[in-house]
Amino acid sequence: MMERKRAGYSVQRDVLDEEGVEEMAEKSDSKTSLCERVRQSARISGPRARSCLLGCVPVLSWLPRYSIRENALGDLISGISVGIMQLPQGMAYALLAAVPPVFGLYSSFYPVLIYFIFGTSKHISLGTYAVMSVMIGGVTERVAPDSDFMMWDNVTNSSIIDITARDAERVRVAAAVTFLSGLFQILLGLVQFGFVVTYLSEPLVRGYTTGAAIHVIVSQLKYTFGISPNRYSGPFSLIYTVLEVFYLVQETNIGTLVVSIVSIVGLIIVKELNAYLSKKLPVPIPVELLAIIIATVISWQVNLEEKYGVDVVGEIPSGLQPPVLPTASLFGQLIGDAFALSVVGYGIAISLGRIFALKYGYKVDSNQELIALGLSNSVGGVFQCFAISCSMSRSMVQESTGGKTQVAGALSAVVILIITLWIGTLFEDLPKAVLAAIIYVNLHGMMKQFMDVPALWRTNRVDMMVWLATFILTVLFNPDLGLAASIGFSILTVIFRTQLPTYSLLGQVPGTDIYRPVEEYKQVRQVPGVVIFRSSATLYFANAEMYQDALAQKSGIDITKILSAKKKLEAKRKRHEKKEAKKAKKDKEEPESPERTDIVTIEVDDRPDPSLPRAIVLDLSPVNFLDTVGVKTLRGIHKDYGDIGIEVVLSGCQTGVVENLQSGGFFNDKVTKSCLFSTIHDAVLHCQSLQNKQGYFGRPRLCK
Amino acid sequence: MMERKRAGYSVQRDVLDEEGVEEMAEKSDSKTSLCERVRQSARISGPRARSCLLGCVPVLSWLPRYSIRENALGDLISGISVGIMQLPQGMAYALLAAVPPVFGLYSSFYPVLIYFIFGTSKHISLGTYAVMSVMIGGVTERVAPDSDFMMWDNVTNSSIIDITARDAERVRVAAAVTFLSGLFQILLGLVQFGFVVTYLSEPLVRGYTTGAAIHVIVSQLKYTFGISPNRYSGPFSLIYTVLEVFYLVQETNIGTLVVSIVSIVGLIIVKELNAYLSKKLPVPIPVELLAIIIATVISWQVNLEEKYGVDVVGEIPSGLQPPVLPTASLFGQLIGDAFALSVVGYGIAISLGRIFALKYGYKVDSNQELIALGLSNSVGGVFQCFAISCSMSRSMVQESTGGKTQVAGALSAVVILIITLWIGTLFEDLPKAVLAAIIYVNLHGMMKQFMDVPALWRTNRVDMMVWLATFILTVLFNPDLGLAASIGFSILTVIFRTQLPTYSLLGQVPGTDIYRPVEEYKQVRQVPGVVIFRSSATLYFANAEMYQDALAQKSGIDITKILSAKKKLEAKRKRHEKKEAKKAKKDKEEPESPERTDIVTIEVDDRPDPSLPRAIVLDLSPVNFLDTVGVKTLRGIHKDYGDIGIEVVLSGCQTGVVENLQSGGFFNDKVTKSCLFSTIHDAVLHCQSLQNKQGYFGRPRLCK
Repeated sequence: MMERKRAGYSVQRDVLDEEGVEEMAEKSDSKTSLCERVRQSARISGPRARSCLLGCVPVLSWLPRYSIRENALGDLISGISVGIMQLPQGMAYALLAAVPPVFGLYSSFYPVLIYFIFGTSKHISLGTYAVMSVMIGGVTERVAPDSDFMMWDNVTNSSIIDITARDAERVRVAAAVTFLSGLFQILLGLVQFGFVVTYLSEPLVRGYTTGAAIHVIVSQLKYTFGISPNRYSGPFSLIYTVLEVFYLVQETNIGTLVVSIVSIVGLIIVKELNAYLSKKLPVPIPVELLAIIIATVISWQVNLEEKYGVDVVGEIPSGLQPPVLPTASLFGQLIGDAFALSVVGYGIAISLGRIFALKYGYKVDSNQELIALGLSNSVGGVFQCFAISCSMSRSMVQESTGGKTQVAGALSAVVILIITLWIGTLFEDLPKAVLAAIIYVNLHGMMKQFMDVPALWRTNRVDMMVWLATFILTVLFNPDLGLAASIGFSILTVIFRTQLPTYSLLGQVPGTDIYRPVEEYKQVRQVPGVVIFRSSATLYFANAEMYQDALAQKSGIDITKILSAKKKLEAKRKRHEKKEAKKAKKDKEEPESPERTDIVTIEVDDRPDPSLPRAIVLDLSPVNFLDTVGVKTLRGIHKDYGDIGIEVVLSGCQTGVVENLQSGGFFNDKVTKSCLFSTIHDAVLHCQSLQNKQGYFGRPRLCK
Repeated sequence: MMERKRAGYSVQRDVLDEEGVEEMAEKSDSKTSLCERVRQSARISGPRARSCLLGCVPVLSWLPRYSIRENALGDLISGISVGIMQLPQGMAYALLAAVPPVFGLYSSFYPVLIYFIFGTSKHISLGTYAVMSVMIGGVTERVAPDSDFMMWDNVTNSSIIDITARDAERVRVAAAVTFLSGLFQILLGLVQFGFVVTYLSEPLVRGYTTGAAIHVIVSQLKYTFGISPNRYSGPFSLIYTVLEVFYLVQETNIGTLVVSIVSIVGLIIVKELNAYLSKKLPVPIPVELLAIIIATVISWQVNLEEKYGVDVVGEIPSGLQPPVLPTASLFGQLIGDAFALSVVGYGIAISLGRIFALKYGYKVDSNQELIALGLSNSVGGVFQCFAISCSMSRSMVQESTGGKTQVAGALSAVVILIITLWIGTLFEDLPKAVLAAIIYVNLHGMMKQFMDVPALWRTNRVDMMVWLATFILTVLFNPDLGLAASIGFSILTVIFRTQLPTYSLLGQVPGTDIYRPVEEYKQVRQVPGVVIFRSSATLYFANAEMYQDALAQKSGIDITKILSAKKKLEAKRKRHEKKEAKKAKKDKEEPESPERTDIVTIEVDDRPDPSLPRAIVLDLSPVNFLDTVGVKTLRGIHKDYGDIGIEVVLSGCQTGVVENLQSGGFFNDKVTKSCLFSTIHDAVLHCQSLQNKQGYFGRPRLCK
């Protein structure tokens, strides 16, 4: 009964197919342009239905509804806690960016305020971020290297570095690249390209940040040991730097090393204590603030700088500085770095923002986030900040201390403002080694990401390869080039995965219309006379040849052999015919006998080999799209097997695939849409009905 | 009845699933290594069952069975015709390669003989090829530029170029890069990497050869006009060269221009005549041979060189030269070019070889072809040849004049040998402009490929983009860099195609178990209370976010809103509870009433929204693989919708996808394999049975 129902439906289905295709053909004009489709799909993630102003300046929509009773206390405590963290981190990350520490404070102030106005994530803590800072450091040290600022010191008769001029230039470079990266982010946001971040898959981001962390650590070794290695740039610079540090380690400043070890050990102990007591303490102990206060007091009292030659932070100007337009002449050199910064900054911020949004049930708008970050960076660039993103550790503190809205971020900016205006100058005696120690200790989260490797080994080895490749590429080529190479690699893995499909013959689960791979299930039975073939992946240029080979191998039909045998027979027959014709000419008296032999020969040749199947069903349900190579391959298979008397039908084509087949010229007057079937079972029923017909008529329908 | 049958099957299917997965888990260890799988799939295309010697030296297997009666005459005529074509083409392409013409003759001899021994294609005509030659020319002119061979001429008091030294160096460079590319090919063949050519899809190869043809034309303009522009290298060099030619065109040598115009017009006329008379002529008129003979005679009689300053070929040494080991010190500079040459040469040869193999029903072994080409090039490199491939035009002549086996190629080599030994020197007066004309006229096939663009516009626009991008990239960056960029682009298109899938809700075709997109077919009906969702593409990092968004949009379920509403209610309830508890403390005398209110509140909150569907079926049949991001997305969807009382089930997962889900940690004690269904219909039946249960018990099973 089921089969009758199916047969009845079979007609219906054909009608469906035709109509569907025509409907699509009408639609196809409107949806052809790739750009348009990109934009369309981007639009999905950024609905612009609400009023533009409220959409573009989210603070206007949520601040009026701010519930002081519910949120104010949490935001206040959280804001102060985060502000206290921003101070040491800002100064430390300024070292990474190779600019004077006070610019780290600025970077923790202006961008955070701007994000308060334009941002949509309530829980992320914007501000300085280790990975971004080390990328900025790479740029500043490349564009304004020490060697450009050598001057001859007449007193010591040696060349020294004009630190003031160098730092001023580096600040200019950092501000310019920050401004430019902000512009890129605004631009990407305006054209709704928030989806670019989808290329930054999670294994890639985690491998990348781990690789960047290695750069961060290596760049801080000089402060820990109190040495001054040469600056290297370009690929493999990390290796050269490590070698140089090993070489210079004998020149270590003992005072600096002692400060480093003491502060690292102290920080680790108090952090562990924090973690241990986390449930009992309302706010975590501000361990980094304590560290810099204690270190500053000791350094000032003992006079570490003069007595032991410990490198200290040095002059910290109090107050804010007037805005300066970025040096446009630098833009040309910085365009690549700025783009990398904009993508990384956005990628980190949006992934963290999404985690919190999911946890607390609100939504971050990816394009608005791009614009908010872009404004933060470009305005920040005018105020000589360096590029920011959001930091995992600070965001965790902001959330755990009760921060519920962006107000916490704004309050942290106020804390930084107060410090910058009045307290900052007090930290002039702080040893840089302490800041380096703060950086190391803050990286422990990224170091934990090494545990991803065994985890991914168990869950998905291709993703583990992506992680490792990203890590290695980032370590070897610096974070900017490494990012590009890693994205390239992760895209290649998609090709690998679809280029190595599993090919299988399907068989029927007896008594049902379910077809499953014969090799994997014992219960399934192959349908006699019908080969059902499926590739686990889409069919396109990179695996089209393998598809053909696998079909020939699995079905056991050697077309080449059969065809060449057929051709030879054909040639023989022709020669035979010629001979016979000659003979006939010679002995014209008896014309019947040669003709009869002729006919017999033909019949023997053309009868299909009984060991061959009668039909092949290609199940195309896993096919996502067909390119011209894919269509040609299918057409070739249809023709070649058709030539030796095997009908080829397709099943489970998606609408887009039918469209591809049609526009690719798969169909013609001989090959019509009647070879398309909705399901494998329909196709098999069709093939079986063909076989029955063959029983009556003695030869397959398509065999000429 | 059908449904009963299905329900009965449902149990069977679950058993199947479990078994299948276990079987796979056993297998998975053995098939994990990507490398291994690459090799495995490569092995499909190169069966090594036959004896190794016969496999590696195909001549041993086919020559003893060579049928003189059948093939000898055709091969002889074809060999002589092709040999006659090799002479002018070899000399002309030597100009492209920037080496003296006689080396083009060597390149038409040694490699052809080697291929006769090792090659498996019977119809392709190996030898010099325009695209390869222009690539070689790029290398020789970059590594041995004119500027390196300037010397001061005391007679004219100006600097002139030491042509002898320059050409000797260029021959060394060409031989070295040829030798190296041969080694690459052998290496690729030995590790069975013949499949690399799959990345060279047809639109890419055609766009590439067209782009390379533009380079060929531009590089010959100097001979046509008799001018000497500077040599540019690197990206955009084509544009600089064209600009320089425009600038220098006023210095055109009129004699040279006349020779060019006359020979181009003459060649075109005779070629057209050839095409027109092709059916009447047994062999085509050897138009190129005639051209160089006539041109040489005229040039010699009129003394074009001295009277009109027409640039001629110059000294052609007769006889062969002893083998010279390639200059290994050059290898470092040439490694990239050699790799590009090896890939391009192989790509062209194998695609042409396959066309003929298909036509005549034999097989070319892709790995053996790589080895044969590699040996041809590396042995050729030792005999100072430049890199060869096979030429479309010569192969067509070889086939159409009756060539049936590799013997035709060997005979053409003998023809070249005779010319090299005795006749070559006669061509010393041949104007280079005639050779340039021969090159132009030979490019008309490649120029015809421009017609691909409108054809692809109609059939497959993404492939048209690949064609155009390859063409533009090849023209702008030279053939080597352009090839790499084009392959990168064509791989990116795969990402584009899967990144912009069509998302659709499926509905049931009434009375059947077929489900089709609701938007495309009028007859289908959505199943009440069940959302069936399908993406046309595989689910992975580049489209995971869009998948989630599209599901929310298509199903009309705003999880964020529902969840946040739920959270608010929860908070309200908690506050209410607290208040009530306080109240209860206060008025301990009447404890019943507050408790009752409490219970009522909870019940109101938890009842599922009647407008929401009860279940979502995700049809994963188009999914080829899942990466960790894909698994996480599915897990997230399962959890989020589960939280608001909607059951999520998956249907149509391939075995590999189930494997990915399992190793990716999709399943746990709450989410079991019972949410996997073989077909959409099974899943829908399951969901409907759930709904019926809900009818009895008043709330969905998964809603807590």
